[in-house]
Amino acid sequence: MPAKDIYHDAVKTALIKDGWTITQDPLSLRIGKKDLFIDLGAEKLLAAEKGLDKIAVEVKSFVGPSEIRDLENALGQFVLYENALSLIEPDRTLYLAIREAVYLDLFEAEIGKMLLERNIIKLVSFNPEQEVITRWIP
Amino acid sequence: MPAKDIYHDAVKTALIKDGWTITQDPLSLRIGKKDLFIDLGAEKLLAAEKGLDKIAVEVKSFVGPSEIRDLENALGQFVLYENALSLIEPDRTLYLAIREAVYLDLFEAEIGKMLLERNIIKLVSFNPEQEVITRWIP
Repeated sequence: MPAKDIYHDAVKTALIKDGWTITQDPLSLRIGKKDLFIDLGAEKLLAAEKGLDKIAVEVKSFVGPSEIRDLENALGQFVLYENALSLIEPDRTLYLAIREAVYLDLFEAEIGKMLLERNIIKLVSFNPEQEVITRWIP
Repeated sequence: MPAKDIYHDAVKTALIKDGWTITQDPLSLRIGKKDLFIDLGAEKLLAAEKGLDKIAVEVKSFVGPSEIRDLENALGQFVLYENALSLIEPDRTLYLAIREAVYLDLFEAEIGKMLLERNIIKLVSFNPEQEVITRWIP
């Protein structure tokens, strides 16, 4: 299993505060002979008739020397995991968890807006000091 | 600009042998304030009525300790560059260039087949010793 991201526990705490139950840490997926590990699986009970909302969350710190390289790496994991999830557990939605500061820097800039407008990526942002979710972009 | 991949020149030679003219090395794209660099741009004249075929090629060596991590990184670059290209130069097609051995190992396995069947990625494979193209998967 890969090493945990430095913000793994902050995101876990933030999700719990947001009403989610952590069900997998990590969530493992097997495609053929290859194993993939997504950081967290979580569930939340919706209004009675709507059932259970299930998500998978991959946490990325974006603390490398190049934010474009960090973005590429996060995007590659997201696309690979999303495709794998859609085969194995199509009712679970994948989110990339990033700090609110990264959201403002990259995803309010043209390059990130392009990815959001084209529905390439889904985001949840968090405040790492307060350990709270700041926004969901499904 | 990022460092060249170790197989950059082998792919360039293989493309030239395959009838392509290298037009950019690298091909740069600007999205807002961020610069992206794709390894190569190339063109080939088609049969008279069909005009010019234009491609961009990103070369990935896949020599890291984890082939899944290498795949994620390549995939992230591919998806980011393909989206950027489609905004700026929509008639140019992006390919990921990988060694034939990597094609056989990853893209004939379930995880790679999944990405090809879903049209997430386009590949060109090459033989690094002979410096020739071995297949195109558009």
